[in-house]
Amino acid sequence: MKKLLIASTSTLFGGAYLEYLFPQLEHHFSHCESILFIPYARPGGITHDEYTTKVQEAFLKINKKIVGLHTFEDPITALKEAKGIFTGGGNTFLLVTELYKQNVMNTLAAVLNAGTPYIGTSAGSNITGISMQTTNDMPIVYPPSFDTLGILPFNLNPHYLDADLQSKHMGETRETRINEFHVLNTIPVLGLREGSWLEVVGSDIFLRGTLTARWFQKNHPAMELESGVNLNQL
Amino acid sequence: MKKLLIASTSTLFGGAYLEYLFPQLEHHFSHCESILFIPYARPGGITHDEYTTKVQEAFLKINKKIVGLHTFEDPITALKEAKGIFTGGGNTFLLVTELYKQNVMNTLAAVLNAGTPYIGTSAGSNITGISMQTTNDMPIVYPPSFDTLGILPFNLNPHYLDADLQSKHMGETRETRINEFHVLNTIPVLGLREGSWLEVVGSDIFLRGTLTARWFQKNHPAMELESGVNLNQL
Repeated sequence: MKKLLIASTSTLFGGAYLEYLFPQLEHHFSHCESILFIPYARPGGITHDEYTTKVQEAFLKINKKIVGLHTFEDPITALKEAKGIFTGGGNTFLLVTELYKQNVMNTLAAVLNAGTPYIGTSAGSNITGISMQTTNDMPIVYPPSFDTLGILPFNLNPHYLDADLQSKHMGETRETRINEFHVLNTIPVLGLREGSWLEVVGSDIFLRGTLTARWFQKNHPAMELESGVNLNQL
Repeated sequence: MKKLLIASTSTLFGGAYLEYLFPQLEHHFSHCESILFIPYARPGGITHDEYTTKVQEAFLKINKKIVGLHTFEDPITALKEAKGIFTGGGNTFLLVTELYKQNVMNTLAAVLNAGTPYIGTSAGSNITGISMQTTNDMPIVYPPSFDTLGILPFNLNPHYLDADLQSKHMGETRETRINEFHVLNTIPVLGLREGSWLEVVGSDIFLRGTLTARWFQKNHPAMELESGVNLNQL
């Protein structure tokens, strides 16, 4: 039975890394001593080792050992044997490129579908959708495909931002970008604000946190979803 | 001899479409009665015809006729015979995908290198760089390559935005994104603010408008370039 936490962001303004998620993480990973960490998204370009150290420091607070996937000679077996998995944020193009390069995209999908507890933040959440085509990230590397894990029956837009009505900047708003996506694509998109996460339990997909989330479907007006809603019922 | 205007944005806050560029456009296209318009970027998902009509309405103010590239059965010949070319903004992934699909990327580069006067705005400016990898746009379609025209010996980031130090949003700043690009790539990047444009005359590349622009090179601190600087001298 699927068991995932899919968070918009790792860090809230003024908070420490993962801090607001610790109550959930403690429960989510209660049966894991060790969590396999996927550091491929390399936020700010830090190395896999540096990223893994940062994550280890955070998870010490809930007494979990972190092991980086990049340290295994056989990442496929490492994923299959993991008791829990965390994919951190950074650049989604880089994350997806590396998942394909290491030939682990299918294995990761398989173990998540089979029930290995998973937490993703930002880019690590993006990849649970059908495609990475609603990422906010810069295309710093060319991935072999935009297709991702397809654990969720829709796409995500993490760090969702409402239009700033005071802004004099003429770049597209997030909503405009997602509407452009829907000119060419039919996949629904969930705009997940910072502080919100999804809790996936089997086929149920609950919106958690205190905020509403914005739901976009092709040829329909966008709508706000209340916290607690089951997106499997939409 | 190359002759290009490469603008960050088509429209300034509070201004009409292309309005701030009309003095330059009038001079730039003084020898063209008709301008070939490339509408492939489809801002907001509007059709090629709708986009071409919008551009025609603007160019009426300087008495230029606009013809959409999408109306030609043979776009390669249309590009070769054009007296002036404009590529409008929208989504860069869509623009690049369509340029490859229509097999016109190389022809467009060739005619611009040979001296056909060109104006690009936003996505239409992005493609004059070496690659589209420093676009801000959402990857709504998968292009066959991120390589673009290579008229400029660097990449552009149009609509360049300085970090908002008051913001509580935890998404990456523009500068962070460009620095992530430079972890993997050596191509310099020019952050071009709204209201700035480049004037390319042969091998000279002048920064125009009243603002400074931000110049990023791998392993160097970012620097501000003054209006009037020749980027060919850097």
